[in-house]
Amino acid sequence: MARNLEFAKGHGTGNDFILYSDPDGSDPLTLEQVQLIADRHRGIGADGVIRAVRTESLPNGAAVLDEDPDAEWFMDYLNSDGSVAEMCGNGIRVFVHYLVERGLADLPDGGTLAVGTRAGVKDVQRSTGGYRVDLGSWRLSGDEPLVSAPGLDVARPSLGIDVGNPHVVAALAGEDELDRIALSAPPALDPPIADGANVEFVVPEDPLVRDGVARIRMRVHERGSGETLSCGTGVAAAALATRHWAGPGAPHQWRVEVPGGVLGVRMFPTQDGEHVALSGPAVIVARGEFVFE
Amino acid sequence: MARNLEFAKGHGTGNDFILYSDPDGSDPLTLEQVQLIADRHRGIGADGVIRAVRTESLPNGAAVLDEDPDAEWFMDYLNSDGSVAEMCGNGIRVFVHYLVERGLADLPDGGTLAVGTRAGVKDVQRSTGGYRVDLGSWRLSGDEPLVSAPGLDVARPSLGIDVGNPHVVAALAGEDELDRIALSAPPALDPPIADGANVEFVVPEDPLVRDGVARIRMRVHERGSGETLSCGTGVAAAALATRHWAGPGAPHQWRVEVPGGVLGVRMFPTQDGEHVALSGPAVIVARGEFVFE
Repeated sequence: MARNLEFAKGHGTGNDFILYSDPDGSDPLTLEQVQLIADRHRGIGADGVIRAVRTESLPNGAAVLDEDPDAEWFMDYLNSDGSVAEMCGNGIRVFVHYLVERGLADLPDGGTLAVGTRAGVKDVQRSTGGYRVDLGSWRLSGDEPLVSAPGLDVARPSLGIDVGNPHVVAALAGEDELDRIALSAPPALDPPIADGANVEFVVPEDPLVRDGVARIRMRVHERGSGETLSCGTGVAAAALATRHWAGPGAPHQWRVEVPGGVLGVRMFPTQDGEHVALSGPAVIVARGEFVFE
Repeated sequence: MARNLEFAKGHGTGNDFILYSDPDGSDPLTLEQVQLIADRHRGIGADGVIRAVRTESLPNGAAVLDEDPDAEWFMDYLNSDGSVAEMCGNGIRVFVHYLVERGLADLPDGGTLAVGTRAGVKDVQRSTGGYRVDLGSWRLSGDEPLVSAPGLDVARPSLGIDVGNPHVVAALAGEDELDRIALSAPPALDPPIADGANVEFVVPEDPLVRDGVARIRMRVHERGSGETLSCGTGVAAAALATRHWAGPGAPHQWRVEVPGGVLGVRMFPTQDGEHVALSGPAVIVARGEFVFE
């Protein structure tokens, strides 16, 4: 049956999303509809489809509001294949920008917006040129596989970082090597990781630290998506791993350049351990109506 | 400076386009704007951007109207990189559907709409489930390079067909081979063709002819674009080449399956030699407003 869907399209450092609002949770898209609208040739095309739902309208909304009664909106994030994702570090900035632009939420300078996600409630603030999201706590996963990929002469050691989802980060010798590696296929991990992991390759800039900010360049292969222009949690993992290698005295402010742009990472102490925050731009490029036949 | 652009997005067998109307020709996009809106991550994303302009508003409009005074609308087709293209067999169907849907042109069943293009005025009619465009006359180009690609054991002979733009068509042994070849890089042509060519690989169905219609499957590598889901003129070239190989008695009605869907090809005599027509679907999936910052 034909139906029209009012949508917006936006991106954060080239990681792009279709967004729509369904305040009372009565209007989820079917799997086929998500796949069609996210199809880059037969639909609009996006890395993910984000539904804005009032948390109280969700079956499990009470649990989210128990965690934080201010989490009025829930980010229902689906991958382009229609599968569920817990969190997306770039998506949540674009989601908040969408809510603010549409007048669905108010986020004054210096204020904080609590957003429900499948990975818990996340706090988002305005930052220079965009938004900053507290991704929460992180940990060393214990995985340290050797990573190999076409273009690398020898396999490289890596460090496993869990930021809600699993990453392994490997340092490369220089910019040339970073540009040369082929990421059209998943890098090989030895030993393999059961459910896979996102793999980040990083190169420090020279000097690593300038004006108190450490700077790295990164490329990423995302589990199930291939190489992407940007991966928010991957950026955080890359900064955390490089700080680990740099040892005590390394800064807690990082600038990470990905193919899609530049993101900021900050580590800071909280009552429940160190948190990591990601900051970067969020852009809405179009609004429209999609026609499902 | 910020400006908003009212656009539609549509596709024909997966070949997708951004369309907008600029009746008096006063509002062309800049090169950067075309590249941005056609960018699949930072914009909406499309294979091409089509501007609908009244022919009389164009600097060279008089020449087009000399050829056919009924060609009220001109299809100003740009590739996603902003470069100019002469014609697009899938794009012109979607263009006519866009004009009809918006009430900018009237095309009753059995009627013909004359459309100005950089390759001359093209006649478009309604057909079953879509539109049929008369691509005009065609010719053997004289090129017959050997074609090789990863996945092919040996180089294959080919036939060069000019349908306004250059094609070489090579027949493969079977479906397995067609599925196996890698088209991420341009197939090698020996001897090479100076300005390049689109390369089509075809496999006849078994039997080739059923109910008077010949049937083939095809994959295509487009000059400058890589492998695509569909190429309208390539589909016509593939049918023309396979008819040439089949010899006298081969039908003039063809059904061509491409990765993006199914297209029809018909060859028919006219006063200025044989013409080839392409028929297939045209879909508008969305309408919206793009925000150029």
